[in-house]
Amino acid sequence: MFERILIAVDGSEGSKKALRLASKLQQTCGGNLMVLTVFRHHSLLEASMSMVRPDEPESLDDSMRNYAKEVAEDAKAIAAEAGAGNVRAFVKAGQPARTIVKFAEEHEADLIIVGSRGLGDMQGFLLGSVSHKVTSLASIPVMVV
Amino acid sequence: MFERILIAVDGSEGSKKALRLASKLQQTCGGNLMVLTVFRHHSLLEASMSMVRPDEPESLDDSMRNYAKEVAEDAKAIAAEAGAGNVRAFVKAGQPARTIVKFAEEHEADLIIVGSRGLGDMQGFLLGSVSHKVTSLASIPVMVV
Repeated sequence: MFERILIAVDGSEGSKKALRLASKLQQTCGGNLMVLTVFRHHSLLEASMSMVRPDEPESLDDSMRNYAKEVAEDAKAIAAEAGAGNVRAFVKAGQPARTIVKFAEEHEADLIIVGSRGLGDMQGFLLGSVSHKVTSLASIPVMVV
Repeated sequence: MFERILIAVDGSEGSKKALRLASKLQQTCGGNLMVLTVFRHHSLLEASMSMVRPDEPESLDDSMRNYAKEVAEDAKAIAAEAGAGNVRAFVKAGQPARTIVKFAEEHEADLIIVGSRGLGDMQGFLLGSVSHKVTSLASIPVMVV
């Protein structure tokens, strides 16, 4: 059925619920499960911070990337616990919805799964209304959990 | 995995694509496939027709219902051809997104599948941006195909 499922996670409860469903679906269908966490580049963060300008944007980028890696690794562990096999975790910087859809295309995913209620843009991270944008942009099926 | 899948159809190519995917998923998961076609009540149609007021709203309602029945039965045949078992077709009148979500709740569906690009509100029928409304309203997973 679905051979290459992409699940986007941001560490929120909503995305963990989506992750557990994705894990079950991977078990049912076989194939691969790709776990993706997207973080915003400092340039994008800066643009949204208006008055505030970090002294060292590079270190901000690093800490965002490190947090995103933790979220992705945590998600990989949850997926394994939920019984999923063939799980790989990825971290990408960029605008959430576009980055998810581009990643799905590049990795020939046949299904994208996203949580419906995430952190939104709090902390520069994923989901929330991102799910709407993903369904609009993607040319493959999108499941909103 | 999914025991009670609800697929909303409007006769468009987009919804037929979603229907074929729903049929495959029903085969993979077992369980039931419910095919739902929603048509608008004459009162809702009238509201959208502004200057136009049909002489016999009841007969308009009847022809909308009959067309919806044809679409639902056609969809049921397509699902059976695609290999789905335990398929039942339903027709309901009302506002598309709300009616789909309400039907899903009443029939304890565990997944709603909708096409992403349908007829919109052309002919008073389903889908298009309806998929966005369904993902917003539903408390269960929604797959946009």
